[in-house]
Amino acid sequence: MKLKNIAGILFMGVFAFSCKAQKKEILFPKGEKITNANFTGTAYLQILIAADSLNPTSVGNVTFEPGARTKWHLHPGGQILLATDGIGYYQEKGQPKKILYKGDVIKCPPNIQHWHGASVDNYFVQVAITNTQNGPPVWLEAVTDEEYTSSKK
Amino acid sequence: MKLKNIAGILFMGVFAFSCKAQKKEILFPKGEKITNANFTGTAYLQILIAADSLNPTSVGNVTFEPGARTKWHLHPGGQILLATDGIGYYQEKGQPKKILYKGDVIKCPPNIQHWHGASVDNYFVQVAITNTQNGPPVWLEAVTDEEYTSSKK
Repeated sequence: MKLKNIAGILFMGVFAFSCKAQKKEILFPKGEKITNANFTGTAYLQILIAADSLNPTSVGNVTFEPGARTKWHLHPGGQILLATDGIGYYQEKGQPKKILYKGDVIKCPPNIQHWHGASVDNYFVQVAITNTQNGPPVWLEAVTDEEYTSSKK
Repeated sequence: MKLKNIAGILFMGVFAFSCKAQKKEILFPKGEKITNANFTGTAYLQILIAADSLNPTSVGNVTFEPGARTKWHLHPGGQILLATDGIGYYQEKGQPKKILYKGDVIKCPPNIQHWHGASVDNYFVQVAITNTQNGPPVWLEAVTDEEYTSSKK
């Protein structure tokens, strides 16, 4: 092999290494696969902060695989969602479905029925900030495929 | 210029472009420069969610330039910090200073004196989740340079 070619390969290697170093890293751990009946499809939860008697705020990192979503539900104390990666959906009962991208923020008022999850073709990662002071979430019926794919309310 | 050299330059260009495409993007906007007296150095705040009468949780994105920090303060309802970028410091009164990296999570109990900010040489970005149900933060004295740089409690 010619010296020129070796130098070229080394040079490419440095570029490839730089690229690798810049690859996106996940912000919070993916956590464990959710096995309860409140979700449709495959989703993962990493609890970041549990509520306690002094601060009723809980924080969790949820990763939805494409097509995965919560059932319809509501939070008696309200919930805040921070979209941190991928592309997701959020819908309140009777309202159009919103598409969520990295950096989008949702404030879901107390006792408003809603669901959230990944979009059809992309995973979605969100930080869910839940005010538990008025009790745990109330879980309702599953989001049907028709509701999930509908672009109307 | 030889064809071989031109091909090499084009090839490098593709690599450089790929690297650029992978550059880190900010998660939330940097917001406005903080001009109140509760911070030392230069910091920026983007309010993501304001507390309201139904949900007392506020969420803000804070960016500290190297050396910048809050004054000592406390939150009557407690606060949660999510480190999203850079390298930061967090210290509760009487405890050792903690170094925070992307993905670290802090739960600061109600009424515990603390401060947080960037490290000496690196900026720091955090999402601050504050429970305002027992009132606004109580701001105290500035963190001295000695406290800021000390590795002891």
